[in-house]
Amino acid sequence: MSHTSRIYFDNAATTSLDPQVLEAMMPYLTEKFGNPSSIYSYGRETRLAIETARKSVAKILNAHPAEIFFTSGGTESSNTAINAAVHDLGCRHIITSPIEHHATLHTVENLYHRGEVALSYVKLLPNGHVDLEDLEQLLAGCDDKCLVTLMHANNEIGNILDIHAVGEICKKYGAVFHSDTVQTVGHFPFDLRNTPVHFITAAGHKFHGPKGVGILYVNENVKIKPHIHGGSQERNMRAGTENLYGIVGFAKALELATEQYEADSAYIKGLKLYMMEQVKKQIKGAAFNGDTLGKSLYTVLSISFPKTEKSEMILFNLDINNICASGGSACTSGADQGSHVIRAVNNNPNQITVRFSFSKHNTKEEIDLVIGKLKEII
Amino acid sequence: MSHTSRIYFDNAATTSLDPQVLEAMMPYLTEKFGNPSSIYSYGRETRLAIETARKSVAKILNAHPAEIFFTSGGTESSNTAINAAVHDLGCRHIITSPIEHHATLHTVENLYHRGEVALSYVKLLPNGHVDLEDLEQLLAGCDDKCLVTLMHANNEIGNILDIHAVGEICKKYGAVFHSDTVQTVGHFPFDLRNTPVHFITAAGHKFHGPKGVGILYVNENVKIKPHIHGGSQERNMRAGTENLYGIVGFAKALELATEQYEADSAYIKGLKLYMMEQVKKQIKGAAFNGDTLGKSLYTVLSISFPKTEKSEMILFNLDINNICASGGSACTSGADQGSHVIRAVNNNPNQITVRFSFSKHNTKEEIDLVIGKLKEII
Repeated sequence: MSHTSRIYFDNAATTSLDPQVLEAMMPYLTEKFGNPSSIYSYGRETRLAIETARKSVAKILNAHPAEIFFTSGGTESSNTAINAAVHDLGCRHIITSPIEHHATLHTVENLYHRGEVALSYVKLLPNGHVDLEDLEQLLAGCDDKCLVTLMHANNEIGNILDIHAVGEICKKYGAVFHSDTVQTVGHFPFDLRNTPVHFITAAGHKFHGPKGVGILYVNENVKIKPHIHGGSQERNMRAGTENLYGIVGFAKALELATEQYEADSAYIKGLKLYMMEQVKKQIKGAAFNGDTLGKSLYTVLSISFPKTEKSEMILFNLDINNICASGGSACTSGADQGSHVIRAVNNNPNQITVRFSFSKHNTKEEIDLVIGKLKEII
Repeated sequence: MSHTSRIYFDNAATTSLDPQVLEAMMPYLTEKFGNPSSIYSYGRETRLAIETARKSVAKILNAHPAEIFFTSGGTESSNTAINAAVHDLGCRHIITSPIEHHATLHTVENLYHRGEVALSYVKLLPNGHVDLEDLEQLLAGCDDKCLVTLMHANNEIGNILDIHAVGEICKKYGAVFHSDTVQTVGHFPFDLRNTPVHFITAAGHKFHGPKGVGILYVNENVKIKPHIHGGSQERNMRAGTENLYGIVGFAKALELATEQYEADSAYIKGLKLYMMEQVKKQIKGAAFNGDTLGKSLYTVLSISFPKTEKSEMILFNLDINNICASGGSACTSGADQGSHVIRAVNNNPNQITVRFSFSKHNTKEEIDLVIGKLKEII
């Protein structure tokens, strides 16, 4: 790859659409446009495409098709789960962490400010993992029915939660458990039938699927009302004409990710470890955020550089050199207030943090080029 | 068009994606996949595409770009407007009509059942139009702040509301006015700067744009909170990674619809009138629902046939003959309870109602074929 090409190291923000996914979507972007809710055969054809997609997604996640609801994305899915836990399941207290995605934090804060719930933040360990003892203490001290909402993997530092352990704790205290799994669905195997969780979420564009489509998994023992009311789509759980091509693309992307999981994850993990080694060797004073070599996403590497006049311009200078990386979540970058995650796990005013996140399309050559540039920039 | 080809007369349910719209979307389905919220130039490129789309939509509707918010569709838009009117603008009473789309009816019913609002239904005139005198009486008798939510054009019978007259009445009583304009945006000119309405909605797939994308217009004098919380997308008004290609496609479809409005609307109106004439001439006992020749969509023709053993099978038999038409809204067809709209305007148990809805791709030859089949079927 030549120096002037773009190097895309921001795959936790969004990924390229796989050409095979687009190919699967194309019939529905052209001749097969019928409304899936129409009763004639032409509508049934597109209805079938949606139900086939649902079955495929359910099978991969080891869930029941009736537990999978298609939405406009991970954010809508988390909003739906959290609001439903409060309005339909009677949760009056929410326990979350300070390093959740804003799709969770802003939703729970809204419910708190409206006076609908009490709100507690679980403590974090020094490596950024949730302190499960503190979680249990919070639950033990809570008189009301609780919703625990904790993300499966952090999008900025990569830390992975022990979803089974948290689920068992929630079970013990009769709490509802929602996990934002946007960074792990399509990147890790799931076995929802044997996972004690009530709600999980996913977004197609995080694993080479389309933007504007996601899923909400709702455990079959949970009965909730929709967040978006209207027509009887998605078995009365999510109204609005279905994003037909998005749904077909979501399923195809998840199928491809699952087929290629062993090879892709090993390859991408190799890239992350290689970059980590090279940074350690070649860039003085760099540090890594989160449990980088432990329970962590193989896709994400969060690096803090010593703050200097030059390093303060690092993202700007990476951009000039056609290198895409980010200071934090893309969803918050418009806000320009720095990362709430980095502040919570590593509140060091003398460091500048950059998240590099990888896909199967990246190479070691790209990492070498980026390391070279980082040395120039810092 | 040969007899065996499909005849698609259900364009009020959804329309085919215009190949020019797909062409405009393609760069964003392939190489231009950057997250529009990313700060590097690659993200700014897609951000620019979204803001260009917003400006184009705003210009066509004669609104300010800051008044246009992209959503996942018309249903989400209406949910957002109605919930915001209650939670953020202090409306404690909702006035609506019995023939609104379920995106409105189910949303207001949910707020009513949760005890958040009082709910009144305005009377209808015999031709299906809203009784504006009754609306004024309801508003005059209401002590609380009111939300009036009335659709611009009914999706089943085609009746068009005098949005200016309703807006003026709302203004007089200090009511908030939301209008579901899903059947009119992309089909009629809008001049929002000179229309007394607080919220309107649209869905791309109703005018040859993509599914899974819509807009919510929020008048600049109104300040509301999002329905979907999270990232700072859409100026903190609609969280979630943007449906980039959907947004680009929405704008392109609206541009094409606007360019071709004079010719297309005249042509489609010709089809509707031709079908009406032919039905009158050739099918005994057929009647038309709504203000068919008056204030009505040029795209929709609602016909009631005398109920017989044969006519009860009409949709089934149309389907067998590859003719797509519907009993009511596609969004409700899953429910199989008949149309709440037809019940409200023409509660005749001795009739069977079919909605035929047209696009620029339909022809008089198709109408002749359908009339021929209808004669056989009935």
